[in-house]
Amino acid sequence: MDGGAGLGPAVAHRAMRLAISKARDQYVGFVVVRNSNHFGIAGYYSMMALEHEMIGISATNAKAVVLPTFGREAMLGTNPISIAVPAGEERPFVLDMATSAVPQGKLEVYERSGKRIPLGWATDVKGRLTDDPGLVVENVEARKGGGLLPLGGMGEEMGGHKGYGLALAVDIFCAVLSGAACSAFTHPADEAGRHLPANLGHFFAAVRVDGFQPLIEFKASMDDLIRRLRESSKLEGASRIYIHGEKEFEMSERRQKEGIPLDPKVGLDLRNLAKELDVPPPL
Amino acid sequence: MDGGAGLGPAVAHRAMRLAISKARDQYVGFVVVRNSNHFGIAGYYSMMALEHEMIGISATNAKAVVLPTFGREAMLGTNPISIAVPAGEERPFVLDMATSAVPQGKLEVYERSGKRIPLGWATDVKGRLTDDPGLVVENVEARKGGGLLPLGGMGEEMGGHKGYGLALAVDIFCAVLSGAACSAFTHPADEAGRHLPANLGHFFAAVRVDGFQPLIEFKASMDDLIRRLRESSKLEGASRIYIHGEKEFEMSERRQKEGIPLDPKVGLDLRNLAKELDVPPPL
Repeated sequence: MDGGAGLGPAVAHRAMRLAISKARDQYVGFVVVRNSNHFGIAGYYSMMALEHEMIGISATNAKAVVLPTFGREAMLGTNPISIAVPAGEERPFVLDMATSAVPQGKLEVYERSGKRIPLGWATDVKGRLTDDPGLVVENVEARKGGGLLPLGGMGEEMGGHKGYGLALAVDIFCAVLSGAACSAFTHPADEAGRHLPANLGHFFAAVRVDGFQPLIEFKASMDDLIRRLRESSKLEGASRIYIHGEKEFEMSERRQKEGIPLDPKVGLDLRNLAKELDVPPPL
Repeated sequence: MDGGAGLGPAVAHRAMRLAISKARDQYVGFVVVRNSNHFGIAGYYSMMALEHEMIGISATNAKAVVLPTFGREAMLGTNPISIAVPAGEERPFVLDMATSAVPQGKLEVYERSGKRIPLGWATDVKGRLTDDPGLVVENVEARKGGGLLPLGGMGEEMGGHKGYGLALAVDIFCAVLSGAACSAFTHPADEAGRHLPANLGHFFAAVRVDGFQPLIEFKASMDDLIRRLRESSKLEGASRIYIHGEKEFEMSERRQKEGIPLDPKVGLDLRNLAKELDVPPPL
């Protein structure tokens, strides 16, 4: 699909619907998208497959902020992957992960609250580990060097080359296969420095479970797997073993009852904006 | 496919051929296998797609030796994933990675050479980090507790829950979708302790590149991406940025010229075996 340089979530929603419709006919549907923009939350699209009793997969490339192993120039996006799988009585399995050690937003959260980041998330311009989140974000924005480390961290000892490989695989499926720009070449500008279309790429897949196993058996096995994991022995001091998506489902239920707490600074921004536009403040 | 409890590599080869033939007709082919055995190297099967100008994907579950995040009982296999992608003048991209921080074989190599392992690869029975590879292998074999840590390591700070999620996704695609046993329930025994079929599961996919992009453009983009990564700025002291598969291709070329060095102990075993069987020793 050509996203027509449109709003990422609208483009992605349409592409995932197409993947689901292709899977309905042929059991597996793949859709790749070029010429798109930031699509928001990867898990939103993979989860669209769940109500059709399908497995959903989504991925996107993104502006380069992640270092390849042994590199000190950001060449890859945080390139997230999401996989959503239906279960029976249990909640679905929903993996939604940046292929970097942490997503960029996490650095921004630490920066806003004045906290240092753990060593192992990011490097300075020279490629040395740093605990200063503001420095990393600034260097990356200005393309000065340094950036986020891939899942598995610095070098190869803890598997950093695997995170780098996953990020690269996402770039291949989202950009090389669709004709979009690879992470390092998204968000181009013309000679006068004006923004050109970002040309991000996405990947979506839907898989009909009943093409492989009877749905009822599949769901019973998912429930069984989830329960066995949950009930397995825990580390001393750990109270739970989580299944992916579980924390977010619980948070979502709580927020629906109790409302969503707002950062005071965001509240202030909204009130100021309301005054400026002469409309009633939203809160 | 039902692997008929047969030899893993024979079953896997046939399944990957089927995935390729399905992709030839329908652009994307998925095959899942139940009732199989250890299939050897995941990358062997993903690479079978390359000569057909396809992207190949393979994955397998395996005996449980890996801990879920916050767990101290091995519930997942090292559950490797391999993705092979054709390029033009450059060598193909071949990712082949255990979803644990390291594969089990790496602990065995350290154990044989009397070396300690870095803290962050594995835990003891209580779930504490350990540098003793022999202890980990022994505990896991005897199902005493402890085991290998997922990619991203202990806890969530460095993304261990992501490696755990990838391992779980592999178990779902290989076992839940095929009807094989999940990692923690492979290799069962009967009441008398006799081994029953391992019932491992595999996943194979082939994707026709020309279903998405003209092959020649796809290959040119792959070459471009690979070259840009290779030429990007390196860490101080680092001489190269590698593309996945590159080290192994170079090693393979060298071995083909110079032969394969054999561990002295393996040589001795072979000579003893030759004597015992009264056949000429192979070396």
